[in-house]
Amino acid sequence: MQRNLYLTTMPVDQARKIYLEAVRDDIRPCPETIKVTDALGRITAEAVYARFSSPLYNSAAMDGIAVVSARTEWSSEASPVLLRPKTDYMVVDTGDPVRKPYDAVIMAEDIQETPEGVLIRSPAPAWQHVRPVGEDIIAGEMILTGYHQIRPIDIGVLLSGGVTEISVFRQPRVGIIPTGTEIVEPCENPAEGDIIESNSRMFEAMIRERGGIPKRYDIVRDDLDAIRESVKKALDENDIVLVNAGSSAGTEDYTVHVLREIGEVFVHGVAIKPGKPVILARACSRPVVGIPGYPVSAYLAMENFVYPLLSAFTCRKEPNDRIIRAVLSRRLVSSLKHREYVRVRVGRVDGRYVCAPLARGAGAAMSMVKADGFCVIPQEKEGYEAGETVSVSLFGTTEDLDKTLVCIGSHDLLLDIISDLMAQEPAGVRLSSTHIGSLGGLMALKRKEAHITPSHLLDEKTGIYNVSYIRSLFPGEKMVLIKAVRRIQGFIVAPGNPLDIRGINDLTRVRFVNRQRGAGTRVLLDYKLSQAGILKEAVDGYDTEAATHMAVAAQVACGEADCGMGVYSAAHAMGLDFIPVGEEEYDFVMRQESLDMPEVQCFLKLLGSEMFRNRLNELGGYTLTDPEIVRIFNNV
Amino acid sequence: MQRNLYLTTMPVDQARKIYLEAVRDDIRPCPETIKVTDALGRITAEAVYARFSSPLYNSAAMDGIAVVSARTEWSSEASPVLLRPKTDYMVVDTGDPVRKPYDAVIMAEDIQETPEGVLIRSPAPAWQHVRPVGEDIIAGEMILTGYHQIRPIDIGVLLSGGVTEISVFRQPRVGIIPTGTEIVEPCENPAEGDIIESNSRMFEAMIRERGGIPKRYDIVRDDLDAIRESVKKALDENDIVLVNAGSSAGTEDYTVHVLREIGEVFVHGVAIKPGKPVILARACSRPVVGIPGYPVSAYLAMENFVYPLLSAFTCRKEPNDRIIRAVLSRRLVSSLKHREYVRVRVGRVDGRYVCAPLARGAGAAMSMVKADGFCVIPQEKEGYEAGETVSVSLFGTTEDLDKTLVCIGSHDLLLDIISDLMAQEPAGVRLSSTHIGSLGGLMALKRKEAHITPSHLLDEKTGIYNVSYIRSLFPGEKMVLIKAVRRIQGFIVAPGNPLDIRGINDLTRVRFVNRQRGAGTRVLLDYKLSQAGILKEAVDGYDTEAATHMAVAAQVACGEADCGMGVYSAAHAMGLDFIPVGEEEYDFVMRQESLDMPEVQCFLKLLGSEMFRNRLNELGGYTLTDPEIVRIFNNV
Repeated sequence: MQRNLYLTTMPVDQARKIYLEAVRDDIRPCPETIKVTDALGRITAEAVYARFSSPLYNSAAMDGIAVVSARTEWSSEASPVLLRPKTDYMVVDTGDPVRKPYDAVIMAEDIQETPEGVLIRSPAPAWQHVRPVGEDIIAGEMILTGYHQIRPIDIGVLLSGGVTEISVFRQPRVGIIPTGTEIVEPCENPAEGDIIESNSRMFEAMIRERGGIPKRYDIVRDDLDAIRESVKKALDENDIVLVNAGSSAGTEDYTVHVLREIGEVFVHGVAIKPGKPVILARACSRPVVGIPGYPVSAYLAMENFVYPLLSAFTCRKEPNDRIIRAVLSRRLVSSLKHREYVRVRVGRVDGRYVCAPLARGAGAAMSMVKADGFCVIPQEKEGYEAGETVSVSLFGTTEDLDKTLVCIGSHDLLLDIISDLMAQEPAGVRLSSTHIGSLGGLMALKRKEAHITPSHLLDEKTGIYNVSYIRSLFPGEKMVLIKAVRRIQGFIVAPGNPLDIRGINDLTRVRFVNRQRGAGTRVLLDYKLSQAGILKEAVDGYDTEAATHMAVAAQVACGEADCGMGVYSAAHAMGLDFIPVGEEEYDFVMRQESLDMPEVQCFLKLLGSEMFRNRLNELGGYTLTDPEIVRIFNNV
Repeated sequence: MQRNLYLTTMPVDQARKIYLEAVRDDIRPCPETIKVTDALGRITAEAVYARFSSPLYNSAAMDGIAVVSARTEWSSEASPVLLRPKTDYMVVDTGDPVRKPYDAVIMAEDIQETPEGVLIRSPAPAWQHVRPVGEDIIAGEMILTGYHQIRPIDIGVLLSGGVTEISVFRQPRVGIIPTGTEIVEPCENPAEGDIIESNSRMFEAMIRERGGIPKRYDIVRDDLDAIRESVKKALDENDIVLVNAGSSAGTEDYTVHVLREIGEVFVHGVAIKPGKPVILARACSRPVVGIPGYPVSAYLAMENFVYPLLSAFTCRKEPNDRIIRAVLSRRLVSSLKHREYVRVRVGRVDGRYVCAPLARGAGAAMSMVKADGFCVIPQEKEGYEAGETVSVSLFGTTEDLDKTLVCIGSHDLLLDIISDLMAQEPAGVRLSSTHIGSLGGLMALKRKEAHITPSHLLDEKTGIYNVSYIRSLFPGEKMVLIKAVRRIQGFIVAPGNPLDIRGINDLTRVRFVNRQRGAGTRVLLDYKLSQAGILKEAVDGYDTEAATHMAVAAQVACGEADCGMGVYSAAHAMGLDFIPVGEEEYDFVMRQESLDMPEVQCFLKLLGSEMFRNRLNELGGYTLTDPEIVRIFNNV
């Protein structure tokens, strides 16, 4: 089997239009009759009419007695009228029929019972407390139009109107075929070379959310015949079939060959990033979509090409995208070759929304979990400049963003702990933390892209943390430094420390993994190296950069490096050994005015809480003190 | 059993606060462990950490060959370098591990295969197209915080991170007990005195929407012992129990007695309208809520008292109410005794939102189906004046409202047909029609509360429909009249016309049901009466008013009246007989500027469509012509 080297790169909208036109007859909504009690969320296929009225007859609207209004006409406080049972009145509860000669109801509270009957003290006008037939629903009345999504109240009214079955649009069945010799079912201990199959489970959830019925098939190895057989079976049993992946042009990408053989391929390759290798095809009068393997690509292919198929089938009106305008924190370069979806974090700082791009790789699914939305760079744009205002499609709501404390700076696992504790606060506040190192964080704070910056920048001259950096970066501004955490930095090494690394001098004989420029840990390393008189060039791997403590630990854990510098908690989390180098101050920097924000107040409360202390002790490697607020007012 | 005559009327917020405090220990969220693949929409009970990294190793990001970067250093277009298989390179597909000595990947497109190996024409820098271990997810990293609602992407990332089971909050089980000797299961042919039980089905749907698991019990007759037994069983099997109804103070309202006996009642009676007779109780360490029987009361009791219980259990963040400000079209009077929820229709006319109150009865469930939201009158307010701007909690979105054609005026079944046809248009337009008679409609149009008014007002002097009314009501304005429909008016009588009603003169010897003042049909009746020289006083029932043709037909159908005036289609829909009186012109009035609205264009298109003609023929009693637009420009 040869590679399919030449994918086309058709613009997204054109590809979708061509495809929806090509499969138009396959995705028409079909009615089915179901019980009203099962109809929540379904879409009516046609107008629904009441079979009978509610109430079915003129009926009592109150508990009391039904009377003939004419006989109550002369009653008053001064001369109450006596009504006798059976002839003059009838006891009724709410909902009971009120038949001729009775034409009014007097409330139980307004009558006085006597041995002979009841005394009334004011006249009851005709129709008082009587619900006329059909007051609520009239037989033959249209209760719901077609194409209406059924709500709880609709179910109540349909049943009251005598409708127990209803014609709704059928939910499309969507077959999902995971393919790939290297992929395995989710498990506890994957072997080397195994890739855990998770896309199909994401698809199932996406399809359920959009009103479809997913059916996942077993994983199929990269084999033309096996794939053909599985696709044919899925075509038999579903309205839409998704094949994931093998949609690209590699040696083992068989999907397109199978679909060309048993059906027709309309598009192979769309100008979208991530997500280019999409296949839009049709076989046995059903749409078949080949979806790329990388999770972000897969997500975007679902959103752009499978959701429209589901919408056509279900006739559901899906919620509009929530679009906001936000200031871009960093330059974004893109190509004219595709429309690019960039995951962004969004926060409201100083009264405006600011968005910060996250990892752009097609495989960075975690960055989608962390993202607040997409910034879409149109195909005809080469990108955006930092500071430009761009549109962002939000995953959540602006209310969420308005309650989010934006934290940009140094990475530490304790930020996750605070984020977790904040999520459990009743106030609904959130912590959004992005890790770009201490210095990068302070620059973001300066540009008002963050509320708060975790920082551990050592001034080599004074041995004091952070203060001199703040003084030089924020002249004339009223800043505060929150001091509460001291943490142990050291060398992260393989379990058992097989290379017997004991100190800074050992770095010249091992493979090292460093942190990125501007990271406080790198500043600390440089300080230690210069103290020891070791040249950077003498350290193998000094230029290999990892973005977080955990990323450093991961490189050591998989054997690609022998040693990296980081915090104890990262080594501990990954089961690695740790050689302490020294304790440092891990502070939080913000503008004084931010102290009043409820989110900051919540942050400070949690920072000093017993819960936080306990969680930090579990991680290990920290010393916690009561939060102290140091004011740094620069008089320039 | 005596009546519980004295309900308290505690303010809503106070009642809720007292109750949530009283049952605080019963509604704490409880964790349970479930499969990640079943977790869509559930709430994490605690933070979730990755068990292993993704990728698990440094791996190929592209299909191609893994190489040793140092050996590619000197390649160029002019002097390609030959790499030999096994020693110099290894074929890799996306995701394959890249192990030492290999440290870079060259894409398949960039190599040239030869019999000896492959030729490369540019150097591959170290780490090119290699995804470092943990690029996406790092073992030990926090994937989700606690209290997070699980989305499709989260499921994908959890599985990729080796998490196959997850601790989420348990869904509360809610037992629903319908009570009442007069209520019956939904059926095709209820007997006289039967009330169809539909509330419990609405509750089931409401509970499902809010993340609970409903369990409905059989209907229990009004019997103290039977209710006690059923409540006890439900308490055994659920976390929350709802009893519906019997929550008021009638002779057969046993609920409060049972709850006092087996538990504790905190509140009986809340200052809310509709919905006063609510019981907030606790038994066997579980919340028990007695819910009133009228559907709108029941809905409001669920929203105000049961939803907060569910939210406490599930820890789900429910969507905020969508609140808009709208101009009130009619005066609303309310009492200081309660907070009142008034159902309103909302439309966007002339750039502002206008809301029109609907039926206010607790039993008018259909008006909730028709409503766009609630206008809430606080307990301390006596109401609002017409023209005042009020807050409205919307059921849907403002986008829906912005695409809604607001139609206020005369009632005809053809409006439902157009509404149904519009709902099926892809543009997402809606028709919202309110029936207050032709004259009332024209007044609403004048006040810019409607876009369009269906009207059939006969000028007795000229015999011409509508024009003279428009001229006198809209001086100086450019109006248009759309003429397309002629319809037959006549007498609606019992099947077989047992009283042999043949014409206007027969009205003096039967029980009549009239339409409300301002209705075109009433104007027509008055015209016919005066032509025949019959006094209004001579017609028994002239003052009995029904609001629509269908309401007239319903009174005749249930035998409360012998005859009413209305259209053929109403008689036909309810299986009644019809004595034609004459044909009239049923026109649509609007401002000329409204003609450009896409919703009006859609309306006109449908009015002239074949589909509409066919549907109207099914109803019967109409003559349809091509829509003609008559311009009425008043030069005052």
